[in-house]
Amino acid sequence: MGKLSMDDVFKALAKPLPDFEIKPGKTALLLIDMQNLVSSKPLLQEALNEGLPEREVREALREYDQRVSKAVKNARRILQACRKKGYDIVHIKLGAQTSNPRHTAKINRKADLIVPMDAEKGRFLDEVKPAKGELIFPKTDGGAFTGTNLDFVLRNMDIESIIVAGFLTDQCVLATAICGADIGYDVLLVEDACTGTTKENHDSVVKLAKDVFLKTKSTSELMRII
Amino acid sequence: MGKLSMDDVFKALAKPLPDFEIKPGKTALLLIDMQNLVSSKPLLQEALNEGLPEREVREALREYDQRVSKAVKNARRILQACRKKGYDIVHIKLGAQTSNPRHTAKINRKADLIVPMDAEKGRFLDEVKPAKGELIFPKTDGGAFTGTNLDFVLRNMDIESIIVAGFLTDQCVLATAICGADIGYDVLLVEDACTGTTKENHDSVVKLAKDVFLKTKSTSELMRII
Amino acid sequence: MGKLSMDDVFKALAKPLPDFEIKPGKTALLLIDMQNLVSSKPLLQEALNEGLPEREVREALREYDQRVSKAVKNARRILQACRKKGYDIVHIKLGAQTSNPRHTAKINRKADLIVPMDAEKGRFLDEVKPAKGELIFPKTDGGAFTGTNLDFVLRNMDIESIIVAGFLTDQCVLATAICGADIGYDVLLVEDACTGTTKENHDSVVKLAKDVFLKTKSTSELMRII
Amino acid sequence: MGKLSMDDVFKALAKPLPDFEIKPGKTALLLIDMQNLVSSKPLLQEALNEGLPEREVREALREYDQRVSKAVKNARRILQACRKKGYDIVHIKLGAQTSNPRHTAKINRKADLIVPMDAEKGRFLDEVKPAKGELIFPKTDGGAFTGTNLDFVLRNMDIESIIVAGFLTDQCVLATAICGADIGYDVLLVEDACTGTTKENHDSVVKLAKDVFLKTKSTSELMRII
Repeated sequence: MGKLSMDDVFKALAKPLPDFEIKPGKTALLLIDMQNLVSSKPLLQEALNEGLPEREVREALREYDQRVSKAVKNARRILQACRKKGYDIVHIKLGAQTSNPRHTAKINRKADLIVPMDAEKGRFLDEVKPAKGELIFPKTDGGAFTGTNLDFVLRNMDIESIIVAGFLTDQCVLATAICGADIGYDVLLVEDACTGTTKENHDSVVKLAKDVFLKTKSTSELMRII
Repeated sequence: MGKLSMDDVFKALAKPLPDFEIKPGKTALLLIDMQNLVSSKPLLQEALNEGLPEREVREALREYDQRVSKAVKNARRILQACRKKGYDIVHIKLGAQTSNPRHTAKINRKADLIVPMDAEKGRFLDEVKPAKGELIFPKTDGGAFTGTNLDFVLRNMDIESIIVAGFLTDQCVLATAICGADIGYDVLLVEDACTGTTKENHDSVVKLAKDVFLKTKSTSELMRII
Repeated sequence: MGKLSMDDVFKALAKPLPDFEIKPGKTALLLIDMQNLVSSKPLLQEALNEGLPEREVREALREYDQRVSKAVKNARRILQACRKKGYDIVHIKLGAQTSNPRHTAKINRKADLIVPMDAEKGRFLDEVKPAKGELIFPKTDGGAFTGTNLDFVLRNMDIESIIVAGFLTDQCVLATAICGADIGYDVLLVEDACTGTTKENHDSVVKLAKDVFLKTKSTSELMRII
Repeated sequence: MGKLSMDDVFKALAKPLPDFEIKPGKTALLLIDMQNLVSSKPLLQEALNEGLPEREVREALREYDQRVSKAVKNARRILQACRKKGYDIVHIKLGAQTSNPRHTAKINRKADLIVPMDAEKGRFLDEVKPAKGELIFPKTDGGAFTGTNLDFVLRNMDIESIIVAGFLTDQCVLATAICGADIGYDVLLVEDACTGTTKENHDSVVKLAKDVFLKTKSTSELMRII
C-alpha cells in the first residue's frame, strides 16, 4: 500500500533488533506452561461447570485445540533438537510451591488462577515433559522472571539468549519474553510453537513485540540453525 | 453474538481481576516517557533524515499527533487532580544516566534507541513536567521496573497500586504494567491517557491485558474516584 | 570505661534501629541451612579426607558441636512455638535444584561448595525439619534473598518482619539478614539459635549488625513475645 | 600453632575462593560512600549536638580520622590508576533522590540516617570525587545492589568483577560486597582503602569475608595488577 503507517515512522527512531546467534552453552530453551491446563479437556470441564453452553464451548475449543496441538508438536521438535545439540532446557510451570494459597502470587490469587502443587492439570504435557537433569521452575504469576529465581540461574549458566515457546502468547509468554528482553537477554519467540487465548491475541503480540522486544522465527527456520 | 470465543472459555479458568481502591498514600501515579521524543516534531525530523517521503510522513503523524495530544491532555488532568489530593507522582523518563552508551540497557542499544542525558528530545513535555519533590526515574530499557530501582522506592513508600499513563502503550507502558502487576501491584491503565505506535497496537494491548494483568478506566471514570 | 569509642560517636549520626512487633501473619520464621552438613559428622569425615590430624579435628569439632547443638535446641523451641501460634515457617536449604553444577551459584561453585540435590548431607536436621505445607527454598549461594524467589513469596504473604536462626552466623545467616534488612524487612536475629564458623566470628557479626542492620534477642526473650 | 581452629576444619568443606583477573572492560571500581559524612568534622558536630564530651569525642575521632585519611589516600591512588587504564568507575553515594523522606529506604529512615539530596555532608570527598562521565548511584539503604539499579547497569556493561573501596567496612561496604558476591560478581576488597566504624569491626569483616565471599588485597598489591 502506498500509505505510510506510524510503524514505519517509528523505525526512524529505533531500528529493528538485530539477529543474534543461537548456540549451546549460551542459549537456553524456555518452555512455558506446557501443562495439562492448556489442553481442552480441563477447559471444557471448567467451562461446563461455569454453565457455558456445551455445544458452543466445544466449537470454540476445537479451533483452540488445533492451535495448541500444532504448537506442542513444534515445541517437541525443537525440544528434541535442542537436547541432541546440548542446549540447556528450562521448563516453566504454573503451580504452587506449597498447598497454602498465601504463598502464591497476588495477581493469580486475585484471579482465582491457582494451580495446586500436585494437581492433575498442573502436570507437564507428555510430549514435552522434562527429562532428568532439566531445570523446572514452578511459578504462580504470569512472567517467569518476576516470580522465580530464573534470572539468577541463567546468569549462573552464562546464558545470554533464550528461545521461547509455550503458552499463552498473550499472557505468560508475553510477560516472560518482555521482562527477559529488558534485563538483557536476546529473546527468540518461536511463532508457531506457541499460541494465545485467541489467534487474534497471539497475532497482536507477535506484531507488537517483533523487532522491538524480540526476534521471531518459525519452527522450521529455527530447526535450521539449532 | 451467538458464538462463544476462547476468551469466554478462559474466563472459566480465571476470573477477571477485581477492582481495587485508589487512595493517596497507597496509590502512585506513574507517567511513562512523556517527553519530547513522543511529539511529532522530532519524529518528523528523524523520518525525513531516513529518507521517508515527507507528505506521507506528515499524514501519518497527523493521526498520531491527535492521539498523543489527547493522551497528554488527559494525563495532565489526572496529574493535577492527583497532586491536589496528595497522591505520589512518579515520572519515568527514557534517558541515559551518563554520556557513555555502555551504561545503557542492551535492548535499547541494539535498537539504537538511546536518548542522551541532556538531549532536547529527552525533555519532559511541558504539560506534565515534574514538580519539585516528585520522583524521576531515568531508564534506558522498556519497562520501568526492570531498568530502575522503582520497585525499591515504591516499597519504601508502602505503595500498593499504580495508575499508569503515558507512552507507548505497546512498548514501555506494556512492559512496565505487566511487570508491576506480576510483582504484586494493582495496576490501573488509563486507556485514554496513553497511546501506542498505532491505534491498532494500543487497542490490542488494552484488549489482552485488561482483567488479566490490569484494570482499565477512562480519564473521566478515574477523575470521579481520585 | 572512661574512654569513648567510635561506636558511641557514630550513634550521634544514626540511632539504633527501633524494636518492632512480632506477629503471626506479619512475621515469618526463617531457619537457615539447618541441615546435616553443619553437624560434625560430615565435617569430621571431610576434614579427615583432607588429611587434617584426627585428634585436633575432633577437639575443634567438640567445641563447635556444643555451639551447634545449643542453637538447634533453641531453634527447635522457637519453631514449635511459632507453629503453635500460626507464624509462617520458612526453611532455607543449601542444595542444588538439579544434578547439573552449571545450574548452581557461581560463588559456591568457585568454592567447591555444592550440595547435590539428594545428598545425605543436605537433609534437614531432624529436630527442625519442615512440616507439611511449610515453605522450603533450596539455594546454592550464601544469602537466601539473592539466590531464590524468597522475597517474592514473602511479599505475596504480606510478611514485614523475619525472625532469623540457623547457620552460619558469619556466612549465610549474615548474607540473608543484611540483604533482608536493606530491602525493607525488620530482622530479628536470635543470637543463641545460630552460631558461626568460630565463636569469635559469630560474636563479631552480632556486634556489628546489632542495631545497625537488625535487632537481636535470646531465645528466652523471644519466647516471651511469640 | 598446634591447635586447629574451626576455620581450618571448614576449609575441608569449602575451599578458598580462587583469585581472578582484574581487567578494564570486565572490572569496575566501586567507591562506596566516600562523602563528607565520613569525615570527622560533621561527626564531631553531631556528637557534640548529642551532648557527648568534647575531649573524648576528639580523641576517638583522631584515631578514626587517621584510618579514614589513609583509606582515602589509597582509594585516590587506585582511582587515578583505574582511570588511566580505562576501568569503569562507579561512585556509590548515600543520599536521597528527592527531599521527601518517604522516598528513602525503610532501614535508614528507622535509624534517622537520611542524607538530604543536596546536603553538604552528602558531597563527595574532593580527593575521590567523580569525573565527568563516571557513574553515580545515590542510595538510601546500606548495600548498593539492593537500593539502586547498579546490578542492571553493571550487566549492561558486561562487568564481571568489582574492586571495592570506601566506607564503612562493617556497614555499606559489607552489604554491597556480600550481595555482589552472591549474585555472581568476583569481589576484591581493598583492605587498606576502606575502614570501619572501629578498627576492630573492620578487621572482623575482613577476617570473616576473606576467601568466603571475596578476595582481599592491599592497595600496593592491587596497584601492581591494575
